[in-house]
Formats: sequence, structure tokens, C-alpha cells
Amino acid sequence: MEFDLIERIRRHTDVHRDDVVTGIGDDAAVVSIPAGRELAIAVDTLVEGIHFPVGTAAADIGWKALAVNLSDLAAMAATPAWALLALTLPTPDEAFIDGLARGFAELATPFRLALIGGDTTRGPLTVSVTVHGFTTPGQALLRSGARVGDVVMVTGTLGDAAAGLRCLAEADTTPYASLIDRLNRPTPRVAAGQALRGIATACIDVSDGLVADLGHICKQSGVGVEIDPALLPRSSAMLTHFHDADALDFALAGGDDYELCFTVPADRASEVAADLSRVGCGATRIGRVVEGAGVHLVDGTGQVRTPDRAGWNHFA
Amino acid sequence: MEFDLIERIRRHTDVHRDDVVTGIGDDAAVVSIPAGRELAIAVDTLVEGIHFPVGTAAADIGWKALAVNLSDLAAMAATPAWALLALTLPTPDEAFIDGLARGFAELATPFRLALIGGDTTRGPLTVSVTVHGFTTPGQALLRSGARVGDVVMVTGTLGDAAAGLRCLAEADTTPYASLIDRLNRPTPRVAAGQALRGIATACIDVSDGLVADLGHICKQSGVGVEIDPALLPRSSAMLTHFHDADALDFALAGGDDYELCFTVPADRASEVAADLSRVGCGATRIGRVVEGAGVHLVDGTGQVRTPDRAGWNHFA
Repeated sequence: MEFDLIERIRRHTDVHRDDVVTGIGDDAAVVSIPAGRELAIAVDTLVEGIHFPVGTAAADIGWKALAVNLSDLAAMAATPAWALLALTLPTPDEAFIDGLARGFAELATPFRLALIGGDTTRGPLTVSVTVHGFTTPGQALLRSGARVGDVVMVTGTLGDAAAGLRCLAEADTTPYASLIDRLNRPTPRVAAGQALRGIATACIDVSDGLVADLGHICKQSGVGVEIDPALLPRSSAMLTHFHDADALDFALAGGDDYELCFTVPADRASEVAADLSRVGCGATRIGRVVEGAGVHLVDGTGQVRTPDRAGWNHFA
Repeated sequence: MEFDLIERIRRHTDVHRDDVVTGIGDDAAVVSIPAGRELAIAVDTLVEGIHFPVGTAAADIGWKALAVNLSDLAAMAATPAWALLALTLPTPDEAFIDGLARGFAELATPFRLALIGGDTTRGPLTVSVTVHGFTTPGQALLRSGARVGDVVMVTGTLGDAAAGLRCLAEADTTPYASLIDRLNRPTPRVAAGQALRGIATACIDVSDGLVADLGHICKQSGVGVEIDPALLPRSSAMLTHFHDADALDFALAGGDDYELCFTVPADRASEVAADLSRVGCGATRIGRVVEGAGVHLVDGTGQVRTPDRAGWNHFA
């Protein structure tokens, strides 16, 4: 009910949308949905000390809280529209709130995403964002459509965020700035998701780790997946600072990358790679969809092993 | 991303809706909105020790987390449709989660509200619910339409929840069961809100206390309000257990009642009282809208005083 803080955050974003009938300041926001569109809705919560290290800059927290949610919309091929922000804070620290607002707005503004409501409460630092985006009926990317013979692809590079988290323990983090930036300021692949409409058969964002997230596609599509570890796209920053074994572990099981992992018919892989290069992230073929169940690692010689880490589980 | 818990909670509710295109289990839910309707969206968070006492039964927390949000929809005259649940828990205690689910479902089911998504994370107990409901364009009840000459009315009785909270300190709470129930199991006035469509000029739910919440109507409508304390509806349970001064304080400044406070043209007050009796909560005339600003107490003799408590502020 303390709308002053939410309104204060909103003022940092310079987004006006005609579809916001009633914004912040009443018991609920009221919005209108364009004819012929459906609504994709997701919520994700960040808890201090669990989803971001204690001491993370307020602006990074604001950015990341929105980014992880836009990433969910990206994985559905949805177009971002509105967000609500539920903020729990130990104290109403104005500098912290303005910092958080700046980070949130930096990401929201280019997507023309409007902050339409929220709630602020006192308690341990927790940021929960609910996002809404438009989809075209029948065109949302689901986890359930992967077919045997499809290829498995992933945008960008994998493992950087986990590598960045490891780097934070170092005394001098300057050499690792790009990795830490990937941890604190993930880029939701919104344009990539939209480019995959009508092409990808299944899609998920890599939040808990490649193996864990790809496992959801396997389960919901009733298929297995074979990944060639040598094909996993890894940044030169990560490969410069970490041994191969660590880098592979980060790429397979590190969470927080917010790349899209998706399946496409084999004959469209080249076209997709070109399309996603045009939107700036590129896409790499990392494996294929097979009969069976679960994610398996298959190297160039045909050796198969089943990964021993299933990704990050908040309650593990 | 741990959908198992959210899906487990959903299974307690027995609600199927054709407008849920994709429910729990993908990166986002996908829903369709009926032609000619707008969407009201609200989010409210409950933090243990702030919004409910430590030791509150899990089922009561589940009920209340939804109730406070449905109350926001009620105050907009919206029809509940879907909810998302962001749950932060210290440990994945199954008995607690099932209890919370039971309470949530008890309230969701009669409203045919579908749980379509959510998120579970590890951390201090926090329950954040985002609700969505349908409104008719131009018919949402706002805080900004009160006009000089309108009467001010309120549903049900005021102060019971605050009285219930006070009672929890007593060794034997049995005599106060009905007051404690009002604290733990508030009834969102959804049917009342809908009955006020096209009649009420402004509406808000009483969550932070009558004076504080009515103050929002004053500010956003550019009017003042005079309340006669003698007219405030107070339950016999509260009046039996508390002195008049306490009972008045609870009714004026106690939060958590989730009654609707609204303004209507004077010539429609009787009709509204009758309408709201039919939906079970009734409505009482407590004052009138005047020129000026803010909430003033005016007794039968014309004595005016300005309340010294502005209601509950989470950061006070």
C-alpha cells in the first residue's frame, strides 16, 4: 500500500503506454489487452544471499530482478508490456531504493515496459517481480514440443555467471569484470525469443543450469537429448581465467546465464543461427534430440556419460 | 522455477478455467482475456512477524495471502480470475506447504480463481500473491471520484482484526475466537464491490486503517471527509471485550479489516445498504464528503477533531 516508494521507482522509467488505464495509486492497476493477443505472465523472486550476494549494488539488484522475469517472457516469445514490483526491505533506505530504481529502469525503458503497481513491506531484502507480455495465440514457445531429430541450440555463451560468482571471492575482481557483469546484469534474450516464433519446437531459459533446464524440455516433450560438451559456447573471458574442467562445469551446471536453450528442426539450424546473429546474441548448435529420456553428454568419439550435477535447486 | 511445490499447491484447488491456455510448468503462464474486458492486477506481500504473527497456522497464512489481494480486486469491482504465488520459505516443510495450500484453496475455489504460476525460493517466510480480475471498461471503482455531498459508507464492522491481534497476547484466546478469526481469515468483499459498480463514486479497501485509507480517497478525489465516530459499525464481540476508547481506536486506525469503504450519492445510500445486505455484509453510513482536505471526526454535537493516528505504516 505504500505506493510512494513504488511511484518513486516508476518515475525513473520514462515509459508511457496507452494500454495502462489506471496505473500506480489505486487498489489495483487496470490495463487493456490488444484484440487477438494473449497474455504471458511470470513471477520470479530474488532473495538476498540466495539469488544475489550480500553487498550487490542496488542498481544491479533492480536490473536483475526484472531481467530474470523478462527472460521468462523471452522463452515464451512474448513481448514485454507491464510489471509489478513487490519489494521487501529492512529499512526504507532512499539511496538504496533510488539505486534499485535506476537499475530497473535501465532495463525496462528500452523494452517500453511500464511499472504499473507493487507493494513495499518491511522485512529481509526480497524483490519479487511479476511481468506481463503479449503473445499471439498458438505462437508461444513451450517446453513440450521438442521432436526426435531436432537439433538443440543455445544463445550466447554459457557458464559466465557461475564463473563470475566464483570470481567474487577473489581480492581483485577487476580482471573478471565481464564475468561478474554477466552475473549481475544478465541480458534477457527477448528479441531472440521473438525471432524463434514459428521455428523453435521447444524453448526454455537457462536459469538453473543447462542440464537442469534442458531436462525440463526432455521431460515435457517425452524425449532425450544428447549434448556434445565440446560444442558448448564458452566465453574467452571464462576460458582465460578458469581451467577446462571448471569452465565445463560452469557451462553445464552453472545457473543464472539467462540464455535461451531451444530445439529446432535440423534443416533450420543455419537459418536460426543467422537470425540470432542479427539480433546480437547468435546461437550455437550443441546437440540433438533423441528417443529416450534425460540429458546425456556424448563426446566426439561417441562416449556417453550422464551428468552428475543436475543444476541448482534452491532447496538442495 | 521449482514448480513442483506450486503445482502441489494448485492441486488443492479444484478450478478449471478455459481461459488458461498454459498453466503451471512452463516459463510463463498464458491466458486469454474475454473480449470487451479489461484486467485489474494487484500484488500484496505478507511477511512473517510483520503481517501475521509468528506461529500463525499455515492454512491461515494461505487464506490471508489470497484474501488481501482479492480485497484489492473487490475494491475495484473486479471479478477474480487468476493468481500467481511467490513463496519464500526457510525450509521446504511439506506439512506447512500443504496447510498453506489448503487455506489458499478454501478461498480460491468458491471464486473459481485459478493458480496459474509462481515461484518458490529459500529465505525468510514471505508470501507474495499477484491477482488478476476482469473489469468492464469505465466501471472499475477508483479512489478519485468522491464528490462533495456524497455519503461515506463502509461494509461489515471495523476494528475486529486489530482487536483480534490484541487478544492473541491473552493466555486463553477462546473467548476471542471470532475476533482472531477476523484477523487470520479476512473475508474479501468481492460481491459487495461488484454490487457497487455504477453506483459508488470512490472505493478503497480498509487494510491500513479507516482514517489512513479514507485519507487516500480524500487526497485522490480532492475532497475532505467528516466521520461521526458514533456511527462506526463495531461488532458485539469487540464491544464485549474492549473498553469504548480501545474499540474506537481499533475501528479508526486498526488495519487488516478488509472491509470496503466507499462514497455514494446521498440519495442512493438506502438502496446500497439494501443491496449489500443481500450479499451478506451490509453497509453503514459513517459520514459525508465535504469541501476541504483530509479526514475529520465530527460528533453529534458538531465538535470536530482530527484523528491523531493515521493508520498503520509498515515503515513507521
